[in-house]
Amino acid sequence: MNIEIIGLIAAVLTTSAFIPQVVKTKKTKDVESLSLPMYLVMLSGVLLWLVYGIYINSAAIILANLLTAGLVALLLSYKIRFTNK
Amino acid sequence: MNIEIIGLIAAVLTTSAFIPQVVKTKKTKDVESLSLPMYLVMLSGVLLWLVYGIYINSAAIILANLLTAGLVALLLSYKIRFTNK
Repeated sequence: MNIEIIGLIAAVLTTSAFIPQVVKTKKTKDVESLSLPMYLVMLSGVLLWLVYGIYINSAAIILANLLTAGLVALLLSYKIRFTNK
Repeated sequence: MNIEIIGLIAAVLTTSAFIPQVVKTKKTKDVESLSLPMYLVMLSGVLLWLVYGIYINSAAIILANLLTAGLVALLLSYKIRFTNK
């Protein structure tokens, strides 16, 4: 199997991994055990990967990190909005 | 600034982002709002990145994903152990 396919599958998995957390949090509105610092640090790292991907002109890195940034930003908004629930 | 430094900082951030979640979960033992599928999918993606890094002989990708795999595996063990708490 071509190693780039391994990289692609890895990118899809580490990006889509956040989807079940978004679905669960949206449904339960329970954010108690989620760590705000984790999602802040994750978002800054993902945005930096986006800069890196744009700089080296890699569509895969840009796409994966755009999606991840969206999902992580959503979780951050849930953590902030639902914390006082 | 050299773009590889941006990539390195991004890798450090997206790896270390899991540390605050490990610390919080270890302290509170509250795993209710954590999504088990998220950490299962994340771990499989990170392990694939590890295979990718070994294959292309990239120390940075190997190191970042070894650390991330350790942190994610720890969170998975907490989610399984503390769920019936």
